[in-house]
Amino acid sequence: MIVTAGRRADVVHLHPEDNIVVAARHLDAGEQLQVAGRTITLAQSIKIGHKIALVPIAEGALVLKYGQIIGSTTSAAEPGDWIHSHNLHNGDFVRDYAKAQEIPADLPPITGRTFQGYRRKDGRAGTRNYIGIISSVNCSSTVSRYIAEKFDKQVLKDYPNIDGVIAFRHGGGCGLQYGGLQHEILARTLAGAARHPNIGGFLIIGLGCENAPIGYLLDSQKLISLDGKGNRKLPPILSMQDLGGTAKTVEAGIKALAELLPQGNDVRREPIPISEIILGTNCGGSDGNSGVTCNPALGVASDMLVAAGGTSVLAETTEIYGAEHLLTRRAKSVEVADKLLERIKWWLWHTSLYGVEIDNNPSVGNKEGGLTTIAEKSLGAVAKAGTTALSEVYQYAEPITAKGFCVMDTPGFDPPSVTGLVAGGCNMIVFTTGRGSCFGCKPVPSIKVASNTPMYERMIDDMDINAGEILNGKSVDEVGREIFEKIISVASGEKTKSELLGYGDEEFVPWQIGPTL
Amino acid sequence: MIVTAGRRADVVHLHPEDNIVVAARHLDAGEQLQVAGRTITLAQSIKIGHKIALVPIAEGALVLKYGQIIGSTTSAAEPGDWIHSHNLHNGDFVRDYAKAQEIPADLPPITGRTFQGYRRKDGRAGTRNYIGIISSVNCSSTVSRYIAEKFDKQVLKDYPNIDGVIAFRHGGGCGLQYGGLQHEILARTLAGAARHPNIGGFLIIGLGCENAPIGYLLDSQKLISLDGKGNRKLPPILSMQDLGGTAKTVEAGIKALAELLPQGNDVRREPIPISEIILGTNCGGSDGNSGVTCNPALGVASDMLVAAGGTSVLAETTEIYGAEHLLTRRAKSVEVADKLLERIKWWLWHTSLYGVEIDNNPSVGNKEGGLTTIAEKSLGAVAKAGTTALSEVYQYAEPITAKGFCVMDTPGFDPPSVTGLVAGGCNMIVFTTGRGSCFGCKPVPSIKVASNTPMYERMIDDMDINAGEILNGKSVDEVGREIFEKIISVASGEKTKSELLGYGDEEFVPWQIGPTL
Ligand SMILES: [Ca+2]
Ligand SMILES: [Ca+2]
Ligand SMILES: [Ca+2]
Ligand SMILES: [Ca+2]
Ligand SMILES: [Ca+2]
Repeated sequence: MIVTAGRRADVVHLHPEDNIVVAARHLDAGEQLQVAGRTITLAQSIKIGHKIALVPIAEGALVLKYGQIIGSTTSAAEPGDWIHSHNLHNGDFVRDYAKAQEIPADLPPITGRTFQGYRRKDGRAGTRNYIGIISSVNCSSTVSRYIAEKFDKQVLKDYPNIDGVIAFRHGGGCGLQYGGLQHEILARTLAGAARHPNIGGFLIIGLGCENAPIGYLLDSQKLISLDGKGNRKLPPILSMQDLGGTAKTVEAGIKALAELLPQGNDVRREPIPISEIILGTNCGGSDGNSGVTCNPALGVASDMLVAAGGTSVLAETTEIYGAEHLLTRRAKSVEVADKLLERIKWWLWHTSLYGVEIDNNPSVGNKEGGLTTIAEKSLGAVAKAGTTALSEVYQYAEPITAKGFCVMDTPGFDPPSVTGLVAGGCNMIVFTTGRGSCFGCKPVPSIKVASNTPMYERMIDDMDINAGEILNGKSVDEVGREIFEKIISVASGEKTKSELLGYGDEEFVPWQIGPTL
Repeated sequence: MIVTAGRRADVVHLHPEDNIVVAARHLDAGEQLQVAGRTITLAQSIKIGHKIALVPIAEGALVLKYGQIIGSTTSAAEPGDWIHSHNLHNGDFVRDYAKAQEIPADLPPITGRTFQGYRRKDGRAGTRNYIGIISSVNCSSTVSRYIAEKFDKQVLKDYPNIDGVIAFRHGGGCGLQYGGLQHEILARTLAGAARHPNIGGFLIIGLGCENAPIGYLLDSQKLISLDGKGNRKLPPILSMQDLGGTAKTVEAGIKALAELLPQGNDVRREPIPISEIILGTNCGGSDGNSGVTCNPALGVASDMLVAAGGTSVLAETTEIYGAEHLLTRRAKSVEVADKLLERIKWWLWHTSLYGVEIDNNPSVGNKEGGLTTIAEKSLGAVAKAGTTALSEVYQYAEPITAKGFCVMDTPGFDPPSVTGLVAGGCNMIVFTTGRGSCFGCKPVPSIKVASNTPMYERMIDDMDINAGEILNGKSVDEVGREIFEKIISVASGEKTKSELLGYGDEEFVPWQIGPTL
């Protein structure tokens, strides 16, 4: 969080107590650096984002970043030495949950800001206006896509307020335990997509014999449609087996969908308080800069949105893991802290079943980018969540109704994580990346924030904001405000890079837990 | 297996020892039926595929179908009573594995038959000729699709021997344990797709930072390309992060793919012995007829292919479960039987982790169709495998090299099951269905066989063969021969219904085991 800016840095010293610094550019062996009143000479070349010992660190000593413990050394290091997996591991440092012991004071309120959004009949606020085709099972995916493909720009030109037709298709929906955890999560996810405030109308298509039948989806999720007057009605439902297969279902789907278009088009953007923005955050392909630039900058934007009465949702439990003690003390109640810890405990059980270590989460790519331990990665990831009180903890794809800073339990892998956030009702996504991600989803726009300038420039077609400027002198606050304004602008209709590129048809990936039968 | 044919039946008595019969049409309450020298009066209406007590059955008595135990009653039944979940459960009957104790004698060989296939440089035989784009992770799915979409019929008109370009995309590839089970299975599946004999050339696209990096895929699977002379070379590999994102990777992909087309097109069909057909079998949306009509008919075709020196692969371990004792006694060795039992044991562990019962596999739809217990469903499913000796048992997506009748361990859910079979090298798929499936895959053609005439007629656009004719007088042998000839004809180039409809771009679903991180 603590990035001293205003100068072009070779390295960043994140906190006065830190015994390491982070390379702000590629550094050569033998380079002499002036930092924190010291001169250190590099024992070897250091890649951007990687850590360098600032002082002598004994074997077994704690390594501090953000002023916090990220692990302990497995061998002694001299000033200028590279600190990474070869000499740093998690260690076994103590966590103090201190539940609800340090609830932050409310920030000075931000008032009077609005965005141009869609006011839905159920009272919620949309930032886009799509029509959805919900595929209940993989077996109806192709049919769902064929129907969506019929409604191209040409066909939709008479419905200028409709952004497009989305076929929500996936690899599951059968071979699961009826009513079990996998089924419940899928039902929540599909229902959340269907009734999303960015969806102006939907239909559901199944094969007919799937283990996750449409009846369960409707009943368990109380899934209904609203007509133009806000009256409840059943959504159109198509069963391929009843209709006689592929061609007949495509035909019926085109007809059913065409009937949704006039009502779907009958919307106008209007000013809506930004307190109705529900921001989902994610990071993917993080590097050593992510926790220094884009994530703390997103934390600033998150704080501003919360100060305006809005909602900001941190997800990716596997990336929170290791920094959960920072969140529990910010929880607004012991109950909320316990909800988070219950999820963490569940994850430890869930991953242990197959002998998987949650510590494996920093990917090969993350490690190449300079992140060593789960604590370090988690501290960097949690920076996205700003500094406000933890208001609520949600299960995957559970409808988000609380204001303020919330957590949703999702995997760290971006597509299932964002799928859950969107199903929960997030109407904006901000996605930070260090190594470079081309993620985008539908029906919610994703703003992509780069952690570093070289990647931002190399992937300019995909990046919306360059937080790498923080390493060139911009303050974290400044980039945070830039993200905040971009959120409002995109919520009002400005297209993100991933929208311009057409992303979102492949990235709907409901989280799958437990065996496929 | 045992369907007495040659007459239009109200019901089918599958085996002389059976104490139940199966409705061959919808029967009304009060109808009197002549069967097995008895007259029974129906206590209630009975849907097609459902079971009827032929004789009085005491509470707790065994119920026999195919002359084998499918469960025991939970209450007494009179002749003409409906037998289903309300009065029949699995019970706890004894299994005798009798490993390799009843190895069937070889069938009289079928000689001299060929199909018109593609002889590949590695010696294997293809039935189609596609170009493949392997997406290593969900993050490169959109780019992979965009590249494939550029190579439409118009662009490919100069390459008439190429059937199309497939983007193999999926929801995984990151958020997994590096080198763990999920990673290994994904690598096998992607490599199996890439080097499939129906793939005339491929390229690989990744984001760059995924947990399942392309390097691991190449190394662990020894994945290489062959040039026009059969020389080994690295396949084209594109990293989105290296190339600078979406637009630049699409551009590079189009260029790389265009270079594959001339060699990809330089193939001709030639006569190849049918012993080189590797048939994968699957059933989906089974009903009470499946085990009476389409599955035993496919068993006949399977036996014929094995008699010709070919390979037939039974999959869907969850559907074998409950009938594994029929396979172990047919195993050619105790080792092969033990391989199967080891997989069954693994499944019991795997499903128990989340408290899921493998018995849940008959889906809601299956039960509506008349199947009550896992044993009944399994016996019906295993009928697809014919009567020959069990030659080998494979892990999911493992390369299939044995001849004869083999088993591959896959889930029962069709898309991941067929994905594994295809990755293992199956060059033909036959798919049986009772309730009606619209499944199709790429790059391998799937012949769909209907279990009953009403569904066949209703879903005529999707069905290739009507095994429901068995209920109208055709013999199982006759339909089995029809399937066998269709396999040869489709292997030689005849298009299946699902190919005509364009299926296969959504149905590539690598089996996912264990936690998504
Ligand atoms: Ca992530
Ligand atoms: Ca990650
Ligand atoms: Ca199946
Ligand atoms: Ca099934
Ligand atoms: Ca897909």
